[in-house]
Amino acid sequence: MNTFGRNIRLTTFGESHGKAMGGILDGVPGGVRLDMDAILLAVARRRPGQSSIVSARNEQDIPEILSGVTDDMTTLGTPIGFIVRNTDTRSGDYSGFANMYRPNHADYTYDMRYGLHEPRGGGRASARETVNWVIAGAIASQLPCMEGIDIQARLIAVGGVKGSPEELEEEVRKARDAGDSVGGIVECTISGMPAGIGNPVFGKLHARLAEAMMTINAAKGFEYGDGFAAAASRGSEQADIFTCIEGSVSTLTNHSGGIQGGISNGMPIKFRVAFKPTPTLLRDVPTIDSEGRPCILKGKGRHDPCVAVRAVPVVEAMAALVVCDELIIR
Amino acid sequence: MNTFGRNIRLTTFGESHGKAMGGILDGVPGGVRLDMDAILLAVARRRPGQSSIVSARNEQDIPEILSGVTDDMTTLGTPIGFIVRNTDTRSGDYSGFANMYRPNHADYTYDMRYGLHEPRGGGRASARETVNWVIAGAIASQLPCMEGIDIQARLIAVGGVKGSPEELEEEVRKARDAGDSVGGIVECTISGMPAGIGNPVFGKLHARLAEAMMTINAAKGFEYGDGFAAAASRGSEQADIFTCIEGSVSTLTNHSGGIQGGISNGMPIKFRVAFKPTPTLLRDVPTIDSEGRPCILKGKGRHDPCVAVRAVPVVEAMAALVVCDELIIR
Amino acid sequence: MNTFGRNIRLTTFGESHGKAMGGILDGVPGGVRLDMDAILLAVARRRPGQSSIVSARNEQDIPEILSGVTDDMTTLGTPIGFIVRNTDTRSGDYSGFANMYRPNHADYTYDMRYGLHEPRGGGRASARETVNWVIAGAIASQLPCMEGIDIQARLIAVGGVKGSPEELEEEVRKARDAGDSVGGIVECTISGMPAGIGNPVFGKLHARLAEAMMTINAAKGFEYGDGFAAAASRGSEQADIFTCIEGSVSTLTNHSGGIQGGISNGMPIKFRVAFKPTPTLLRDVPTIDSEGRPCILKGKGRHDPCVAVRAVPVVEAMAALVVCDELIIR
Amino acid sequence: MNTFGRNIRLTTFGESHGKAMGGILDGVPGGVRLDMDAILLAVARRRPGQSSIVSARNEQDIPEILSGVTDDMTTLGTPIGFIVRNTDTRSGDYSGFANMYRPNHADYTYDMRYGLHEPRGGGRASARETVNWVIAGAIASQLPCMEGIDIQARLIAVGGVKGSPEELEEEVRKARDAGDSVGGIVECTISGMPAGIGNPVFGKLHARLAEAMMTINAAKGFEYGDGFAAAASRGSEQADIFTCIEGSVSTLTNHSGGIQGGISNGMPIKFRVAFKPTPTLLRDVPTIDSEGRPCILKGKGRHDPCVAVRAVPVVEAMAALVVCDELIIR
Repeated sequence: MNTFGRNIRLTTFGESHGKAMGGILDGVPGGVRLDMDAILLAVARRRPGQSSIVSARNEQDIPEILSGVTDDMTTLGTPIGFIVRNTDTRSGDYSGFANMYRPNHADYTYDMRYGLHEPRGGGRASARETVNWVIAGAIASQLPCMEGIDIQARLIAVGGVKGSPEELEEEVRKARDAGDSVGGIVECTISGMPAGIGNPVFGKLHARLAEAMMTINAAKGFEYGDGFAAAASRGSEQADIFTCIEGSVSTLTNHSGGIQGGISNGMPIKFRVAFKPTPTLLRDVPTIDSEGRPCILKGKGRHDPCVAVRAVPVVEAMAALVVCDELIIR
Repeated sequence: MNTFGRNIRLTTFGESHGKAMGGILDGVPGGVRLDMDAILLAVARRRPGQSSIVSARNEQDIPEILSGVTDDMTTLGTPIGFIVRNTDTRSGDYSGFANMYRPNHADYTYDMRYGLHEPRGGGRASARETVNWVIAGAIASQLPCMEGIDIQARLIAVGGVKGSPEELEEEVRKARDAGDSVGGIVECTISGMPAGIGNPVFGKLHARLAEAMMTINAAKGFEYGDGFAAAASRGSEQADIFTCIEGSVSTLTNHSGGIQGGISNGMPIKFRVAFKPTPTLLRDVPTIDSEGRPCILKGKGRHDPCVAVRAVPVVEAMAALVVCDELIIR
Repeated sequence: MNTFGRNIRLTTFGESHGKAMGGILDGVPGGVRLDMDAILLAVARRRPGQSSIVSARNEQDIPEILSGVTDDMTTLGTPIGFIVRNTDTRSGDYSGFANMYRPNHADYTYDMRYGLHEPRGGGRASARETVNWVIAGAIASQLPCMEGIDIQARLIAVGGVKGSPEELEEEVRKARDAGDSVGGIVECTISGMPAGIGNPVFGKLHARLAEAMMTINAAKGFEYGDGFAAAASRGSEQADIFTCIEGSVSTLTNHSGGIQGGISNGMPIKFRVAFKPTPTLLRDVPTIDSEGRPCILKGKGRHDPCVAVRAVPVVEAMAALVVCDELIIR
Repeated sequence: MNTFGRNIRLTTFGESHGKAMGGILDGVPGGVRLDMDAILLAVARRRPGQSSIVSARNEQDIPEILSGVTDDMTTLGTPIGFIVRNTDTRSGDYSGFANMYRPNHADYTYDMRYGLHEPRGGGRASARETVNWVIAGAIASQLPCMEGIDIQARLIAVGGVKGSPEELEEEVRKARDAGDSVGGIVECTISGMPAGIGNPVFGKLHARLAEAMMTINAAKGFEYGDGFAAAASRGSEQADIFTCIEGSVSTLTNHSGGIQGGISNGMPIKFRVAFKPTPTLLRDVPTIDSEGRPCILKGKGRHDPCVAVRAVPVVEAMAALVVCDELIIR
């Protein structure tokens, strides 16, 4: 099903090479003046074609808000319907491999699931869908319950290299120049989160974040706090000792990543998401077609050498939707 | 909320030191003869007190099935209600730190969430809850839709050491002897999974597995296929080349971990879950109480030196619930 | 599925002649001292065998609360699990017509739905299930959000006769003495309801009440305010003129039944539920068995001559669950 | 929340005098060739301004399908997004009573619910929303699971008069000429329904239909089978005797209205919905404004003298959504 969230609920539609993407954001309270520029800015950040290291597909991506707000963008408490027309849908780009299963793409699994291979650029499996999430996340971020919450994601590693933005960009460029792609890790920090948010059994805060992050295209792993490193440590090394200074409780360290027992403890929430390299290469690769016949997939198309770069605002949007979903009912 | 799943839905109750644990498994089809021994065996596997390296708490854990089956354990298509009495609830063990916040435990966050600190051994936050999941998972595993599916989890690392069961057990023993605890990694393989199971946008198969695994107590990270290692690789190294032999499609490698675009591709599904060391130590640790006053938490209680050991059957149970939830509607 | 409600959610299990009925009430806030006597009283009101005009089945119906409360019945914020053992399950009473389809009963439809005819007294289709609802309703009624809300249902008609309780009782007695059964209408008034509760599109307050009431066994119709009579009237006769006295808005009449556009207007909510006569008669009736062969169903068993009588506390319980579900999130 | 259904799920948006109405229909299987003309026809049937007895508001109401289908209207298995622009939104018509609470309208309750009175023609409370339901219902009706199912609604009473269409039309005309409005009853018959559809406890088929019908604007009552008349009868009069002719089970009478114990029995499903007279009159009526001050509401605007007339296709659409939701998972 195409709905995400429980209290703030996003339902989306749209195939990457169809008429439009769009969604309905339900559960937004009335009387909130939305900043349309902030929405446009978020959409612009995820748009391809902005720098030398991302795909050259150039869409304007101007969302049209169809309901839920007055003319001056004050929310009505009713569902916010929005659409984004797909303007640059050169489906010819994909016609050459209409029946070929691209390795590591969703072509084959999609075919098995739906009994037909959507020829128009990946259908719902395309990262084009994330434009809906970014719009919804930008709206959610502006709701009163989110005041004081700051969500910042950034790329911290590319192809095994951790370093400055310039060093990471250099890694992306090297992969691109080799006709190849490269993976990366995005780290996200949620500051200003009050203690006591989340659930102790099902719906643990980190389980919801994990689900949200693994929903992003090309995500292969999620960890929070010390994550996998915690599995290699002793308990005595992990203890986040509590202190209470003038009535304010905090911990001396933050191995827990801001969440204990599925509920926030007031420390910054920290998690990381691993993204695989985009499976589309500018090289020829052997594969099979939908009849099972061997064939050669020619390397072409407009794709990112490192999808983790553009995933940064998507990570923030999905984090905003999860956090807002929890905070809005307090 | 205390419900997990959509088509096979488990709703649970019970505090670790209350009268009973229990649950309702809804969505089970009628006419299935259940093997009660298989349920008892699964419950026995997660029970503490079985070996030298797990906690000595000794519960019999005999589930009572109250509905949904005939006398000979044939399902009726109606919800299966079950309970497990808590027989060994020496709550005195915990009385000493009733008002202290144990580091890395859920005490403080639970207090912030519910406005009261459940004094009876962690309430819903306790791993005691997992007995409900194991019972439900053992039932789900026996349903017709699960025929041919094999779910096997095993401990693959303890405290950074990867090796044979004996080497891992040795690491646990060393931690225990030091009055400490240690983290570990559980790997799970789901074989026999047909291609085409999952969803392309929300509800991706790996996102649902991630959510399920991060629901398990002490889980800190999840990855599938090459996981975090994929983020350090090039696309050309990740390509799982398709082959078709006598009409049967497979891939030469399995970097994808059996899932592409959120949908199974027929290869074995492989994922790993990182567990932190249990935060309860047999040493004294400084902390604060619910009034914010510094205090010393005495090391005692009955706890596992390595919770990852007992997580193995819980990983299998949660994986079974997710997979069954997807397969039952086909 | 066996779950009712969104914010206060009741999930139930139990076949009428199985081991136990039971349920899990999720979403109850912590810190509420429950009155067990009020729960027992509500259960006693729906119990058969209390007066000359209801079925003679005699169950003690003592619910056991297994979780979610402390020893002194203070809620913990965790799900409340409860069971009621079935003590008086003389299934022999039903053995005579194990394979016959009783007219107007759920035997045939249940068989078509589940592929098997549950021989033990109607399985989930039995009104025995309502004991779970009454327990949950009695708990919901005690929550802080329900303060000031008064829900009162009463029988207003039997077999077409409207009159005093004595006159209605006389109608029931006449039907019973004739070996027959008779229908009735229950009216329910919810006083103290604040204005502004409900939803404008899906989830209209009266739509939720309609769904809840039609869930009760033998319900055939629902109307609120002027109901079907409104369909026979002119708009000029229906206008509920607003007045505002000392800042308090009310309407001079209440044709609307306290709900306008799916949302409460602060006037008493009034609705009526029509119940058919119980289909079990003390006479022989012709029917067919599960092989399609004609047969004669002997009149016997322990059943109410007028199910509407015992429906009164069930109507109140279901109304309480709906109203609480809406009020708890305000 | 603005979502209806479980397996076929409709999520909608749009205020009557905003930019557009629209929705997302999720759960539609792939490979179904949709008949766009059938959708347009259904939309045309509910459109005002078609005959002398309905409102003169004249919208073209051409839905635009934005996703989920190929160019030749074959479904993709992905969510179907659609919008209908609001072209005739003379909001000036309503400006005169922007702050007045119209009697029996949702103005006051909406204000209490959302803290603001949507000035644009009733916002989400307007019957304009039903265009979304009619589009979705027309799509649902074309799915393979609905083959053989025939859903027919018709007006059977106006203002207490039962008779031929001409007699009913005459009643509407008399009310309109008097500057008044009048209520009516719509009866719906679902033929071709297989036995065994529905649920025995929560989600009973008639409870779902009741909820769906009470969701329609101006609905005041719902009954199925003998409905309220059953409450005035004896059990011996209600018995639907089973027969089995050449392996085909049916009942000699249909007092049950095709549903027993919440599950269809294969007989035609019959239910009736009572609609109140539209509260907008062409007469002046006294009321109060949002400050509680008395004022006079001038009679004007474009409204139906009998909303039950236009409710007929809406009843069919909502019935189709409920029935499809149950049938699609078989």
